[in-house]
Amino acid sequence: MPPAKVRIQAAELRSLVAAIFNARGCSVADAETVAETLVWANLRGIDSHGVSRVPRYLELFDKGESDPAAEVAVQHPRSAIVRLDAKTAAGPVAMTRAAHEVVAAARETGIAWAAVRSTVHTGAIGRYTSLIAEAGMAGIGIVAGVPNMAYVGGRTAGVATSPLSVAIPSGGADPVLLDMATAVVALGRLAQMKASGTPLADGVALTATGEPTNDSALAAIPLPVGGAKGAGLSLVFELLASGLVGNPIVSAFHDGTEGGRRHRQNGALIALDIDAFMPLAEFTQIVDATLGAIRALPRADADVAILVPGDRGSRTAVERSAGGVPLGPKLWEQLSSAAEALGIPVPAPLG
Amino acid sequence: MPPAKVRIQAAELRSLVAAIFNARGCSVADAETVAETLVWANLRGIDSHGVSRVPRYLELFDKGESDPAAEVAVQHPRSAIVRLDAKTAAGPVAMTRAAHEVVAAARETGIAWAAVRSTVHTGAIGRYTSLIAEAGMAGIGIVAGVPNMAYVGGRTAGVATSPLSVAIPSGGADPVLLDMATAVVALGRLAQMKASGTPLADGVALTATGEPTNDSALAAIPLPVGGAKGAGLSLVFELLASGLVGNPIVSAFHDGTEGGRRHRQNGALIALDIDAFMPLAEFTQIVDATLGAIRALPRADADVAILVPGDRGSRTAVERSAGGVPLGPKLWEQLSSAAEALGIPVPAPLG
Repeated sequence: MPPAKVRIQAAELRSLVAAIFNARGCSVADAETVAETLVWANLRGIDSHGVSRVPRYLELFDKGESDPAAEVAVQHPRSAIVRLDAKTAAGPVAMTRAAHEVVAAARETGIAWAAVRSTVHTGAIGRYTSLIAEAGMAGIGIVAGVPNMAYVGGRTAGVATSPLSVAIPSGGADPVLLDMATAVVALGRLAQMKASGTPLADGVALTATGEPTNDSALAAIPLPVGGAKGAGLSLVFELLASGLVGNPIVSAFHDGTEGGRRHRQNGALIALDIDAFMPLAEFTQIVDATLGAIRALPRADADVAILVPGDRGSRTAVERSAGGVPLGPKLWEQLSSAAEALGIPVPAPLG
Repeated sequence: MPPAKVRIQAAELRSLVAAIFNARGCSVADAETVAETLVWANLRGIDSHGVSRVPRYLELFDKGESDPAAEVAVQHPRSAIVRLDAKTAAGPVAMTRAAHEVVAAARETGIAWAAVRSTVHTGAIGRYTSLIAEAGMAGIGIVAGVPNMAYVGGRTAGVATSPLSVAIPSGGADPVLLDMATAVVALGRLAQMKASGTPLADGVALTATGEPTNDSALAAIPLPVGGAKGAGLSLVFELLASGLVGNPIVSAFHDGTEGGRRHRQNGALIALDIDAFMPLAEFTQIVDATLGAIRALPRADADVAILVPGDRGSRTAVERSAGGVPLGPKLWEQLSSAAEALGIPVPAPLG
């Protein structure tokens, strides 16, 4: 049995993480953005992209691979294009800025594209498409990173498990929120399966030497979803997110460029203003009717409800907003120590 | 052994098909657009979306479900949004017009979205993203149609096998061209597997009554690629392509709306102008370096080359441009009869 988790109120966890990032050199606003983004992921049950990343972010600051004080530079080469140079700012800082900028541009032109150059770990990209949806727009987001997934027909890490997210306003509290890796099983989930000794289906992963495996303990390289589909999506995300900002990751990773294997990411967001087509309330009625039709479909298993993208995260957020965010004791110890070392008070876990 | 195919020169096949559509009420320009689009698919080996569709298009004209003389109406509600009402024009007519309009808008704003309302079968959507790429832009296309694929957790046709295409200019003759259905295996391929008696892997299809099957003869409802991923993509394509033009298909299909099960499609195209970011030649160098890195990856099977999206189609197009388009004898008989009935001369197959 794994050790019991501690539960921390979301607001206290946010304050704690913000204080840590502020103490490590981020402005108050940037520190709050990082904390808000990470805790958002925890609330929605995406623990692999939540505050468990704090030690890694601090390590990137230590190594000089991410700059806590970076000021994101924003250019508008065309009316519907925003280009942000993140200068190694933390992903949440750069991508949140991009979400706000792309919404502002799309308010004028109807659709806009924000390209984010040279950031680090972007976190859960559903956060940024959700921000766009909160502004009454459809949001689409992609990220490109360092290769960690096999390309179809290959036996090494050829491309990245780069995610795609689409958020669409609904009449409910939360948008429809699709957030998917291009791998069959995301790396975080593979690690969980390894920890629990769960065997893998065929086609999920290769070993470190490129052999297919069903043993989660040996799984090292995830395989792309749908073979050529997932591999192709990851490749075009690299060309769009990295290529267009002149910061290619995949080619530099493979061709021996100095620093080509260093952690870094590029991202892109699209905002599409619903109001360019019809009043938002009219659109969300169509969305809700469509979601209703999907939920009412005849079920493969009568006892298993049919979900739409975002349902699971929204339910988890309700639970965790009330009952606190569960954290493993080792992670809680890491966060507490980091805070104490910086003279930051540590909140008490919930009873 | 299947009966031998006839081979028709692409230019002659184009002229034949254009003459048929012109005789059936399309303008000369629209008839040429339909012929160009369908033969493009044949040249690239996408025979399921090529001239095999001619009988079906003519049937839609006969039934009044598609109007050969429809004049697509174009509106520009915002600088980067084009809204096209296809008024049941053939898909190639509406989507080709959309491709040209979205490129013109993106030339000004950097990115643009074209929404196509109320068309019929759009054909191979890679055609339209390729047109965008030929204009020096990245093209993204989606289509929404009548449900024919299971939603994850369902046992009936809940959503459509709606495709996604992304085309990106390269330094070579053809763009990088991803064109994927959201099903594990597209319907056309399922039909081929049924014809050849090829068994299905797990997770490919359900029977007509919603049971999982490995028997291609019993396969009736394809399953979404990656489960929740493919299902979620199809759902958001419906919300974006159909919802934003106020012509929902999925909800009308399921809620008993009169005509809700009638064949119809909506589509959307994005054009993203590379020149807003950097000179096209600089970008295509990055693309080519990335493709080179992918092609050079260590192979799972030393004898099987690693392909990038579009490779297979480009090679087939070279072969078929020289050696003609292969057509099954039954299809050739259908096309010949349709032409003869309209007084159109039928070209001789290649030796």
